[in-house]
Formats: sequence, C-alpha cells, structure tokens
Amino acid sequence: MIGLELTKGLARAIVSSRPEDSAEAMHEAKKGLLDFTAASFAGRHDGGIQKLLQLIETEGGEPIVPLIGQGKKASPLQAALLNGFMAHALDFDDVHSDVRGHPSAVILPALISSAAARREDDRFFGAYILGVEVMARLGESIGSRHYEKGWHNTGTLGAIAAACAAGYAENLSEEELEKAIGFAASQSAGMRVQFGTEMKPLHAGLAAQSGLFAVKLAQAGFGGSNAALDGELGFFSLYGDLEKAEKVLLREWGTSWRIVHPGLWFKVYPFCSAAHHAADAILKLIDEHGVRAGNTERIEVVFPPEGDAALTERRPATGEEGRFSVEYVIALALNGQELTADRFTHKPIPSSIRDVLPRIHRVYDAGIRPAPEAVPKGRFTIVRAFLTDGRVCEARVDCPRGAPGNELSEKEIREKLKLALYADERKADHLLFAIEQIGIQQFLSQL
Amino acid sequence: MIGLELTKGLARAIVSSRPEDSAEAMHEAKKGLLDFTAASFAGRHDGGIQKLLQLIETEGGEPIVPLIGQGKKASPLQAALLNGFMAHALDFDDVHSDVRGHPSAVILPALISSAAARREDDRFFGAYILGVEVMARLGESIGSRHYEKGWHNTGTLGAIAAACAAGYAENLSEEELEKAIGFAASQSAGMRVQFGTEMKPLHAGLAAQSGLFAVKLAQAGFGGSNAALDGELGFFSLYGDLEKAEKVLLREWGTSWRIVHPGLWFKVYPFCSAAHHAADAILKLIDEHGVRAGNTERIEVVFPPEGDAALTERRPATGEEGRFSVEYVIALALNGQELTADRFTHKPIPSSIRDVLPRIHRVYDAGIRPAPEAVPKGRFTIVRAFLTDGRVCEARVDCPRGAPGNELSEKEIREKLKLALYADERKADHLLFAIEQIGIQQFLSQL
Repeated sequence: MIGLELTKGLARAIVSSRPEDSAEAMHEAKKGLLDFTAASFAGRHDGGIQKLLQLIETEGGEPIVPLIGQGKKASPLQAALLNGFMAHALDFDDVHSDVRGHPSAVILPALISSAAARREDDRFFGAYILGVEVMARLGESIGSRHYEKGWHNTGTLGAIAAACAAGYAENLSEEELEKAIGFAASQSAGMRVQFGTEMKPLHAGLAAQSGLFAVKLAQAGFGGSNAALDGELGFFSLYGDLEKAEKVLLREWGTSWRIVHPGLWFKVYPFCSAAHHAADAILKLIDEHGVRAGNTERIEVVFPPEGDAALTERRPATGEEGRFSVEYVIALALNGQELTADRFTHKPIPSSIRDVLPRIHRVYDAGIRPAPEAVPKGRFTIVRAFLTDGRVCEARVDCPRGAPGNELSEKEIREKLKLALYADERKADHLLFAIEQIGIQQFLSQL
Repeated sequence: MIGLELTKGLARAIVSSRPEDSAEAMHEAKKGLLDFTAASFAGRHDGGIQKLLQLIETEGGEPIVPLIGQGKKASPLQAALLNGFMAHALDFDDVHSDVRGHPSAVILPALISSAAARREDDRFFGAYILGVEVMARLGESIGSRHYEKGWHNTGTLGAIAAACAAGYAENLSEEELEKAIGFAASQSAGMRVQFGTEMKPLHAGLAAQSGLFAVKLAQAGFGGSNAALDGELGFFSLYGDLEKAEKVLLREWGTSWRIVHPGLWFKVYPFCSAAHHAADAILKLIDEHGVRAGNTERIEVVFPPEGDAALTERRPATGEEGRFSVEYVIALALNGQELTADRFTHKPIPSSIRDVLPRIHRVYDAGIRPAPEAVPKGRFTIVRAFLTDGRVCEARVDCPRGAPGNELSEKEIREKLKLALYADERKADHLLFAIEQIGIQQFLSQL
C-alpha cells in the first residue's frame, strides 16, 4: 500500500494517525501509564539511581522535568535517562510480546520529558499508543533472530519507537519525522550480555534519551538520511531482516492498535517475564500439592527450545541476577518466600536458597504443542516436581497472570501502585485521579 | 598470551601500558593533536554547530569544557558531543587504515572533556596513543565485512576506544575498565546510510560522549558486564567476528604503537579519504597533461572491487554530499577549482560542475595488483582521461599525499592550522606552542 519505502511510510502513517479516536486504546493507555507509575515508584530506591543522580549533578542542567519519586528535577534528556532506568530497574514494568521487550519504560519517559518541557500534553496518550504500536511492529519486523543473536530489543527498538512517540507529541512534520527515525536508528544499541546487571535497565533510559534527542535534532533542522530504515545499508538490513520488514512493518496499519491487541502485559512479579509462567506453576504446585524445598528431590522446568533465552542466570549470586534466573524464582517459592521486590536486589543470595538451585533442571521439548492462547506466542512452561515420597506432580502455564488473556483487573493494578507507595493511599489516589480525570500536567506535579 | 578473555585482556593491557615511554609515539600524538586542532578550527563555522548549540542551551549544563572556536563552554558530555562533531564536520580530520574510520575526532574530544573537568592532563598523550591503539585493533578485529554491511566504524568502534582512552587518563582500575568497555559496547552504533549528511560527523561526537559516559558510570560503581566483548552474545559476535577478534585483538600488544605504524593519515583535502587517491591523480593529469573540463570527453576512475564503498554519492546535489563523491571532486578539479573547504558546504552544486558529472565513470578491476605500499592496504585509484583530441592519459595513485608513506611534514600540518585560522599567525603560534611546549591546560585555554 505504501510501497517499499519503510521510513517514509512509517512517518506518513504516524502523522496521519488519530489514535485518540479509539476509546479502547485510550483506556489501555491510561492503564499502561498507571502500571508504569507503579513500577517506577517501586524502583525509586534502587541503588543505581543515586549513582546516576551523582553524574547528572556533575553535568548540571536546567531542572525542568520531575525525576519520579526523587523530589528533584533534571533537564529533559537527563530525566528521560533516569526515569527510563527507574521504570525498568526492577524488571517490574510492562512487556509486549511483539516487542520482546519493554515498551513503556522507553516511551513514557521520553513523553514525560517532552510534556514537562513544553507544558503541553494534549497528544500524550495518542503518542504513547503510537509508540507502543511502532515498537511492536519493529519487534515483529526485526524477527526472533535479532534477540537470539544477543541484541536487547528494549534498547535496539526503543530509540526509534520513542522518537516516533515524541515526534507525534511534538507535532513533527512528515519530513522531520523521517529524519528523526534515522537519528534514532543511528543510536540504536544494547546487548543482552548486560542482563542481570544495572546496565540492562539503563538501556531503557538510553533509548528514551536517544529517541528524544532524535526529535530535538529534527526540530533543529539537523541534516540526516530520510530513508534510514530502507535499503541494503539501512536499519533492517543491519539489525534484522529487510525482506520481512517490508512485508510486516506497515501491514494493516490502524485497523487495530497493538496496545489493545495483543495488549500490554502488566507484571505481577518483579523479574523477567520469561520466568513468570514458571512462577505461576510452582505457586500452584505449592498450593495444591504441598510441594516445598524439604520434600522435593528434583524439579524439572520444561520450555520449548529457546523459550528460556532471556533467563541467562542458572546460578545467580545476587537477587539482581536472580531476575533472570528461573532457578532462583523457584527456589525462593520452594522456601516459602514471597516473590516481591526485596528479594531481587543487589544483595547476595543466602545459602538456604542457593543450596536449592542445583536441584532445579531445565529441559527443552520441541514435541509439546504450544496452546493457541499462549503468551508470548509459542511459549509454555511446565514445572514438574519429583517428591521424596515418590510422587511426581506437574503444572503447566501457557498464559501467566498479568499477560493478555489473563489480565490484571484495574483494581489489581491500583493495588500494585499502592504497594509501591508503601500503602500511601492518599498519594496513590492523587496519582490515579490525575491519570484518569485531570491530565498529564497534574500527574507530573505528583511525581 | 592472555587467553580468550578479550575484555579482561584489553583492560589489563591498557592499565599496564606506559605509552609515554615511547618518544616516537609521543611525537606522533602531538602531531595528531595539532592536525585535530586544525580540522576542528576549519569546521568551527559549520552550520550544524549552531543547531547543536541551540539544543545544548535548552538543556543547560555546567560550563566547564571549551567548545573549540566558539568562545563558549559546555558540560563535559555536551562538549564531547559538540567537539566530536566539529572535528569531523568537514571530513578534514585524520583517518587510520586499521580503523577504517576517524580515531582522533572521537578520542580527543573525550580526553579534552576529561582533562578540562579534572584540571589534570599528565596522562593526556598516553591516553590518546592508547585510544588510537584500541580503535585500530578493534578495526582489524571486527573485519572488513562490518563496514561493508553498513556500520560506520567511527561510531561503532569509537565509543569503546574513547572509553579506553578516557579510562586510562582517569586512572581507572582494571575492573572498572572492564565495565567501562561494556558500557561503551552497549552504546555502540552508527550507520553508513548517514554518509553525506550532518549525522555522519555527529556519530563521532556521539561515540566520544558515549565513551566518556561509560567511564563516568564505571567510576560511579554502576553495575555491568565485565566480559561484554566475549562469548556468543558479546560485542564481537554481534557486530563482527569473534573468532577473528580472538586471534587479532591483543596480538603483540605494546611491541609498537599503531599511532606510529602504520600511523595516522593527515588529510590535505576536506573530503572522504577514499577519494584522495583520485584527487591526487586528477591534479597530476591537469598539471602534466593539461587535462580540463573543456578538452575531456570521458573520465574513467578505476578502483579495486569495493574500493569505493565509502563514496556513496555519484550525483551529489550539495557540496556536503560531494564529500562522498569522487565524481564531484574530479569535476571541481577539471573546472579549475581549488579543493578547499568552501566547496564542500551544504550549498547546492552549481550547474557548471553538475554538467561534468555524467562524463565521469567508475570502473572496477580485480586484476590489477595493489602496490605493497598502498594505503589503505589493497587500495589504488587510476584516473584515465579520454581527451577530445583522441589522446588518452592516466595517473595511478597508491598512497595519497598525507597518508603514511607519503606524510605531510610538520610544517605542512602547521600550514593547515594557519589556513584554518584564516592566517591568524599569532593564534596558531599560541596553539602550537601550547601543544609542543607547555601543556594541555594551556592548550585548552586557547580553544
């Protein structure tokens, strides 16, 4: 329909979209902002934040944009970096299965900086819907090989998505947006070797910052390619698969929004989503069969091949590394511990938990058929417990709690926010009211 | 010798090196700083600078580091960005054949920010020697396919090199440097689709900024991978060829420095180095055979296959695009114009030059043997002129003027600086004296 000029086609699709007309998408966007706020406040005491604040203070900058939960402001680019880090610090923020990464932790910090700097926000939610749309379509276009090779999609796709979102918010022309997409593509980076370290969440902040900077460059009339996604030397050829992108990137644009179908996945646990199926399954076995560390010889965790690619840690040393360890999550649950944020800090893992890890084994089974409702598509996890009394019991999860098809209620997301605010109901109510009723400037003043 | 742990081996090699002990390397480093200063002052009026200054002013920041030739200061990260852009703005800064890109425009802005912020500079030239060393070794390790696929080596290799240089200047520990290398690798980006636009030189600034930021993160104790270059998911697997890197990256470290052998290539023309052979050749034909636009029917420019990969513009519309066009360079010379910076601005190319472009044809000949002294290795250019009177004459250049083996004298580099300063001899003398005799703080005060 738009031919093979992907950059031009994407820019045109964005400037001519009116996502605000979809009540359903706007409703999901408000839920997304609410969950982002909960994840960010939950992460506001993370140790990395003080380190980043120290760097920001040395650099200096106009205090224009609130740093969530810090009682401080920073310059727009600095705030995009720090708020992006914070939202993703605990890995408690939303994911999207088309993205294979974290859209809101990149897109919303860029939009918050943009709205605070301009004191305008009438296109905020529309921009967020489009940002998620672009990041999901980039994820589908780039192919699964991209992630498997070692790229961190949150970083590599996030800058372009944030540029498209902030570009819509700031009303860029089609030509400016083409260039902004290229400026962002030329800053797209992030490697999965950083999983389990503070650098992983910083990829979200860096992508937010790069996307916003791309928009600023375009507004300043800076010169750049207007076709950076296209051709043999362009973004898709370099990072992914141009042929696939040409088929997928703009297909049926606007018939529905990806923030609605398949929708964002709001997390109930503060660790990598690839371990959520197993978490649900082990909690079920504990609840229904009394499985626990003391009565279990061996645990098998069955994935489809590559289904555990994100779970890079088999023998984590700290809770932070444990965010990427299905073994750690299961060991915690077997020891009767709650799967809450305080278990996933930089502190060393106690020996009572560490000792359980060697009993937990990963198994891959390409013969098991994924369920049609599986999230992400093609994924499942079976947890099988071999008890000391000879019993074997198992639980299978295709669509974990919080994922599309097994959504959290709005009440549950509000509870997540209240928990993050240590049950400060008044603060939570102010934030909720600002998001749902009043508007973004009021919301910003509550951060 | 150090085994296959590339990140650890590189960090260890750097912290245990004392490049200041090599008088030859120190001499080349001073020449490099001089040429960088000339290229930067020559670029100080480039249109992109005002656009970047506007963005920096909106953000705010502590005015700590001089912006070359602007009479202004900015924060360390901002100055690294802008000074990096400026040095590379005209494509008049040095290249290095192992890098296949521009080392000094990335490394020196990071070091200038570092030295100005700390008011210390005793390791400045040593850090510069090491930065060039790392970038050259990264270039050799990453393989030629990296560039050919579409990556811009100045951007993709520059951040790690700048981090290593600034890490040495700031005396990072081995462990901090391992992490800084990873922080830089996770920000490594830049695409060749931006060639011919302002974004190309900004890649140098972005890499300088990313490398310096990586060092600051490491100093703040930020968490990250200490092995980001290694393994199946690491930098070399993702961007290049791990097997080759394991053979090449640390081979014979310290036996000689790459800033000496093969050495930096200081440019005599303000355009892409891949067109310098052709420029020397056409000037020779003009001088010796009276070739000119009026008496020439057809020009053939003979390259080895892929020898013109960087020359992306066959029909440039502006002088800026013309920096990547061998056709434009030859057309200028045929019309008797000097190959100076004022011909390579954003202004449209006049029709008198444009009309000559279609007479110039590229030819590839894999059968011609490159000379042993060729720079870069394997490269040559033959310019063949078919005159209206039936004569055919040709000139071949293997090692263009300014390249290692055909070096500029120190006097010629000084002339380049004086020309950049519009013959302001006093200013040039102050800068020269600061570089050669007094020290970096004095030099910084002259920028």
